Amino acid sequence: MIIESLNSEMSPDIVVPPGDDAAVVDMGEHYLVISTDMMVESTHIPPEMTGRQMGWMISAVNHSDIAAMGASPVGFVLAMGLPPEMEVESLMEIVRGSNECCRQIGSAFIGGDTKESDVIILAGTAIGKVRKEGLLTRSGARPGDLLAVTGTLGRAGAGYFAMKYGVDFQKGKKALMEPLPRMNEGRILSSSGVVTSCMDISDGLASSIYELSARSNVSFRVFRERIPVDPGVRKVMNQIDLDVDEAVLYSGGDYELLFTFRPEGEDLLKGMIPDMTVIGVAQEGKENILCNNGENLPLENRGYEHFRRRE
Amino acid sequence: MIIESLNSEMSPDIVVPPGDDAAVVDMGEHYLVISTDMMVESTHIPPEMTGRQMGWMISAVNHSDIAAMGASPVGFVLAMGLPPEMEVESLMEIVRGSNECCRQIGSAFIGGDTKESDVIILAGTAIGKVRKEGLLTRSGARPGDLLAVTGTLGRAGAGYFAMKYGVDFQKGKKALMEPLPRMNEGRILSSSGVVTSCMDISDGLASSIYELSARSNVSFRVFRERIPVDPGVRKVMNQIDLDVDEAVLYSGGDYELLFTFRPEGEDLLKGMIPDMTVIGVAQEGKENILCNNGENLPLENRGYEHFRRRE
Repeated sequence: MIIESLNSEMSPDIVVPPGDDAAVVDMGEHYLVISTDMMVESTHIPPEMTGRQMGWMISAVNHSDIAAMGASPVGFVLAMGLPPEMEVESLMEIVRGSNECCRQIGSAFIGGDTKESDVIILAGTAIGKVRKEGLLTRSGARPGDLLAVTGTLGRAGAGYFAMKYGVDFQKGKKALMEPLPRMNEGRILSSSGVVTSCMDISDGLASSIYELSARSNVSFRVFRERIPVDPGVRKVMNQIDLDVDEAVLYSGGDYELLFTFRPEGEDLLKGMIPDMTVIGVAQEGKENILCNNGENLPLENRGYEHFRRRE
Repeated sequence: MIIESLNSEMSPDIVVPPGDDAAVVDMGEHYLVISTDMMVESTHIPPEMTGRQMGWMISAVNHSDIAAMGASPVGFVLAMGLPPEMEVESLMEIVRGSNECCRQIGSAFIGGDTKESDVIILAGTAIGKVRKEGLLTRSGARPGDLLAVTGTLGRAGAGYFAMKYGVDFQKGKKALMEPLPRMNEGRILSSSGVVTSCMDISDGLASSIYELSARSNVSFRVFRERIPVDPGVRKVMNQIDLDVDEAVLYSGGDYELLFTFRPEGEDLLKGMIPDMTVIGVAQEGKENILCNNGENLPLENRGYEHFRRRE
């Protein structure tokens, strides 16, 4: 949650207002992009999560935010609140998880600090940089732009439901606990010159579409049959008798990128990001519509934060 | 506390090892300096502290760490864990406190994020930059260098004891709750070309002297009568029947800079930082000594973290 009233307190020379994926600072030749996010054991860390996964996760969520702005990673720092009885080895598991994620995406774990606390608290900050012309925000989509996503969707959501209802779906559990931020794809989108807006869909596809719509002042027509559902998701969702849409549209946890681009850029982008899929188009107006084989359904503005234990 | 074993997990191309004031990243033309630090209500925030002071404090402690490395501030981000029942106005008090501190020292509050938690958690990250030749670390002191501090000492420590024993000492309380990082002085020390090591004394003067000594592989002869004791500290400490040294040498909370420099730079530095005081000299060997009017006393290696409620 970002409090909109923070706006009034922000430095007047900041580049993008709060509420975008990350903070942006003008460094002269480039922008510095900074994301900070916190996980707290009692409210955001499921009991099934290992220390290594916690460390991976806090690195992944922060890097995903800077990827969504088109930035290349510069480094990652981690402030940890840890119970006094925790063993050094358990702390190192967390650090190793963060470091592994950093290495995998070309970032670097550059510093950590620990403090005593009653429960485990992980506060990560990822720093990236981006050419000024390549900064991607949530507010640039225009009518006529195409809407696309990277990868396949629903795996994290189905993984969550599978865990909740005791169904075996290891691939989904891994997707949920160890998401891989789309660092390279963010960089490609940034340098393509045809992308007009971008964000990650960690809060869910539907709510992210609403977010791009509100910030860019356009609406979207989304084609349901084009949404790339991850293999295995339908089977799991059928098995536990839940609508596939709950995993694909209304669940968080898929760290894919949602972006708009000018139609003439489609071949260029598909050449560089083979696993992207066009799922809709931006238009004038305010109502976001889900087209299902010619029929117009309303797209609901809701998502689900799996790791938040209380509402 | 920095866990030394983090070392083994650090990226091989980091510029300074963990354990210095902040992380450093090579950006080509300059270094980026990044400090992250956390305050947790149950263990690090005294009940007397207002929301505005909490916000000020988390900004101050992080900026002090980048000042100690000679960096100029680029910006500050704040991740907050907040109880669900907290009012937006209370949140804004914290943000305003951080922002006020940022503005006062020429930094910028560039982004914040909130999460739900049982207690207030503030995790701040300050980012600065510094010319490569101007980076100050804890490890550059050499025998013959002079040892100096900015400002006057003991106010925060005496403020802590005054609060603890119910003695009125507003100036001390303010110093303890709203420290002002020595941003300009850090920058001046960095650009002087004569400073060989630097750190802040937030953990106490004595333990900071031991830290510079260990990292630089020198020892210090410190002249007790030259240590600039803040006016009012003696009176308060006498009033509550405690040794002045407890506030001046063995207490944390004074966010002054402790640094070494080549003796020929003394006039240059004093011209730029009028309130600095030379308090000692670096020499070969391992034993740090406190000289008291010609008598050699041992300097004890202990400090005190006032805001840590449990040992």
